[in-house]
Amino acid sequence: MAKSLPEETGLDHAAMEATLAISPYQNWLGLKLDKCMAGEISITCPWREDLVSNPNLGSVHGGVLAALIDLGGLYSILTQSTRVRSTVDLRVDYHAPATPDGGTMTSTSTVLTIGGKISTAETRISDANGTLIASGRGVYMMAKA
Amino acid sequence: MAKSLPEETGLDHAAMEATLAISPYQNWLGLKLDKCMAGEISITCPWREDLVSNPNLGSVHGGVLAALIDLGGLYSILTQSTRVRSTVDLRVDYHAPATPDGGTMTSTSTVLTIGGKISTAETRISDANGTLIASGRGVYMMAKA
Amino acid sequence: MAKSLPEETGLDHAAMEATLAISPYQNWLGLKLDKCMAGEISITCPWREDLVSNPNLGSVHGGVLAALIDLGGLYSILTQSTRVRSTVDLRVDYHAPATPDGGTMTSTSTVLTIGGKISTAETRISDANGTLIASGRGVYMMAKA
Amino acid sequence: MAKSLPEETGLDHAAMEATLAISPYQNWLGLKLDKCMAGEISITCPWREDLVSNPNLGSVHGGVLAALIDLGGLYSILTQSTRVRSTVDLRVDYHAPATPDGGTMTSTSTVLTIGGKISTAETRISDANGTLIASGRGVYMMAKA
Repeated sequence: MAKSLPEETGLDHAAMEATLAISPYQNWLGLKLDKCMAGEISITCPWREDLVSNPNLGSVHGGVLAALIDLGGLYSILTQSTRVRSTVDLRVDYHAPATPDGGTMTSTSTVLTIGGKISTAETRISDANGTLIASGRGVYMMAKA
Repeated sequence: MAKSLPEETGLDHAAMEATLAISPYQNWLGLKLDKCMAGEISITCPWREDLVSNPNLGSVHGGVLAALIDLGGLYSILTQSTRVRSTVDLRVDYHAPATPDGGTMTSTSTVLTIGGKISTAETRISDANGTLIASGRGVYMMAKA
Repeated sequence: MAKSLPEETGLDHAAMEATLAISPYQNWLGLKLDKCMAGEISITCPWREDLVSNPNLGSVHGGVLAALIDLGGLYSILTQSTRVRSTVDLRVDYHAPATPDGGTMTSTSTVLTIGGKISTAETRISDANGTLIASGRGVYMMAKA
Repeated sequence: MAKSLPEETGLDHAAMEATLAISPYQNWLGLKLDKCMAGEISITCPWREDLVSNPNLGSVHGGVLAALIDLGGLYSILTQSTRVRSTVDLRVDYHAPATPDGGTMTSTSTVLTIGGKISTAETRISDANGTLIASGRGVYMMAKA
């Protein structure tokens, strides 16, 4: 029940790169595919003033970090199954501000379960100094096999 | 414990409008303050192609909806207490896609509890047709009274 | 999408009372059906030493409060649709300890959305003094119509 | 910010065993300490008819699984810092039913961050066959250092 059916296949690096670039919002964020393997994906997002919530701190908006957890989780499932369709719900924990000193952020997303109807994936976002910025989890709707 | 101390005051409409505009990311989203009263705030976000996740559907990215829940909750608390500092965690449920036909979205955020250390607020986002797009909740860190 | 189909019917008060009593765990908790109407249900749970987490405080265990949010949400959906099957995920915010002085707790659960595949409901738990003890939300899997 | 201060110490195996047994509810669940090391703890919970939600399936109640995630996360933090006080919020994903065939469940909880005010920990619960039953995360309030 909680395992990917063996005959399912997901996207490879080139197909994932193309998928990541389909979204205007994701392009605006400046996202780049870092790694893509079965069950895990990592994506980079450079710090930029446009992304800032509090200009005194220079901290990236919580919604931008939530976006990385939302899309990273979905794409990690897409490495194993193209049946994934949409996000059911999302949970984000904020651990430290993403400031200019932290530089480019990297989100790493891992599949937790792939099911017939529902899949789950979790994501951690670190800055260039290795500080854990945010982490969380998404639940995703699957189309029928 | 779960109640606002009577002597606390929050921001009024003009001060809230100025606060909303401090964030470069929030300005890029095109957010406008709709209503601001004690314990409740509503904010509008126009549909725009830049915000789209899936260009086939024209649906707004889940991260943008998460941003509305994150900031709306924080600002609803700010109507009652200026001690609110940052988001501890966030939960988002996605109910329906925010498409061009749905037009401008309105998020309405309500204080659930204001505490000494932690406060909570919940938010619902509807499109111009009244369809519930997303809803969720944030937990926020408070500075000492 | 986010609305109950008009032809669906749910359980009435007597049928809900019988359903609540099916679970050995729920019987051990001492749960009683308080109110049952379309889209909303309330259930009482008396404070009891067996439920305690921290004996110095006499506070009810967080898992017991989570149980009330889990089952209350599912049963609120069951007032409108018998297609609800199981809990996908759960979120609980703890606001104040449920102590002996607070007496019997009452959980009130309300349907947020009923969908073809997924439904959501939210719950608030108060003690006999009206203090908000905990609140949260569940996402539930639906069988086909 | 997201790291345990080096001078902090937590409970060892014997002290943790005593702490686990302080709660009447935890004793009723039949919990036993399995492993206890710095930053990680595992606890067993035998399947028992008293814990059942749906007697047709024999599945353990979601509230019992939520209890394991709540307390397991708090105790994993307690292996590194005795400043942890109470649960702020909890998230649970349900992956598969915990049935009699699955036997005794084991929850493994790991510290994610220890902070000055807030800490986070995550937990996975598997049955005796190795099936992932539920997983989730708790956010916990810390007393001052």
